[in-house]
Amino acid sequence: MSPTLREPPSAEPAPAVGRRRTGVHGARHGGRSERVVRAVMHAAAAEIARAGYAALRVEDVAARAGVNKTTIYRRWPTKAELVKATLRSFSDGRQAPPDTGALRLDLLELVRRFVAVASTPEGQGIYRMLLAELHVPEVEALARALREERLAPWREVLERGVARGELPPGTDLDLLVEMIRGVVTNRLFRLRGPVDAGALESIVDVVVLGAKAGGALRRGPAAPGAP
Amino acid sequence: MSPTLREPPSAEPAPAVGRRRTGVHGARHGGRSERVVRAVMHAAAAEIARAGYAALRVEDVAARAGVNKTTIYRRWPTKAELVKATLRSFSDGRQAPPDTGALRLDLLELVRRFVAVASTPEGQGIYRMLLAELHVPEVEALARALREERLAPWREVLERGVARGELPPGTDLDLLVEMIRGVVTNRLFRLRGPVDAGALESIVDVVVLGAKAGGALRRGPAAPGAP
Repeated sequence: MSPTLREPPSAEPAPAVGRRRTGVHGARHGGRSERVVRAVMHAAAAEIARAGYAALRVEDVAARAGVNKTTIYRRWPTKAELVKATLRSFSDGRQAPPDTGALRLDLLELVRRFVAVASTPEGQGIYRMLLAELHVPEVEALARALREERLAPWREVLERGVARGELPPGTDLDLLVEMIRGVVTNRLFRLRGPVDAGALESIVDVVVLGAKAGGALRRGPAAPGAP
Repeated sequence: MSPTLREPPSAEPAPAVGRRRTGVHGARHGGRSERVVRAVMHAAAAEIARAGYAALRVEDVAARAGVNKTTIYRRWPTKAELVKATLRSFSDGRQAPPDTGALRLDLLELVRRFVAVASTPEGQGIYRMLLAELHVPEVEALARALREERLAPWREVLERGVARGELPPGTDLDLLVEMIRGVVTNRLFRLRGPVDAGALESIVDVVVLGAKAGGALRRGPAAPGAP
């Protein structure tokens, strides 16, 4: 059991506006407006972790970020827009996809990024909210939009693998992504077990070798004998 | 999207004691005591779906089952015992594991059983409760005990596959189970997408072919180069 993954999302205040900080956003930016965005995103993630979506109040996000409520509304006119921006800000789909020339290595890099983001307090809080409130229509719409964005780099990496002849044409690429992310999500959020480097490699290897051997060739639900 | 999987768990009353019923328990039993058990298990599953674990009241289960509270307490002295019996009653680990002589077919049968149970209103309610209340220590203990029981038939089927030479010795069998159940769980409960026969076959084929090719050979977290 990894203690990090068992802790509830941190309730620490977000970095106050004006303090410098590097974090999920990578480089240090100097502008006040970027510092405000960063502080609001961290505060919103903390409030999402604490209150979820339905009970989230923009006032509380503003108070936690140390900014005026109107500062938030000017940029994100609705709660849904604020939450969507927060989810994107802590998504693992933000970086350019890796391109090492080998499918296995590209997938390992993508799954490591996913685990890294999903293991932060912000990532944990966001995932738990998505799980708990998927029945809220606004949350389901957000989750669907976010999923497409998250899938994009995986699809790109897998399509390059097909183009290089590492996977047979006609492979159900989305299923492969789902298999890798599904087992990792399940381990992080349901089993609450560790996701070590060895496990990630085995997961990627099973999926790549199984797909290479034709296990994920698209088939209709009406052809139960294939492949 | 499968409409069945998108419906909230049914709030219909459990079958009243005394009415005959076949269901998850397979054969029809005649004895009054068995009918009571069945009615209480269905009522408890419905109450778990409605109220979750923490808010579950044995009185409500008794009322829904049409039995006296003391009838329940006589058999299951605590709420935890009642819930444990309910979870086992709707678990997919109750039947003897299949033994077709082919690993692929055995795994397909196991995953179909899993989907069948997880698609009932009782199965859905139980899974959602386990997801939502895993932070409750009693629920975590129940989930852990149940997981071991559920894994047993999968391990048996996979070990027979290794003994027949279908998988290399040293394969991490639990990881294979986790990969199959993880993607299915994720699709049923997070993505809320359909789990058709074609998808189940692809999932099983990717895992079997990938493991056959050595993708899940046990390795330490310190050996990132393998295989």
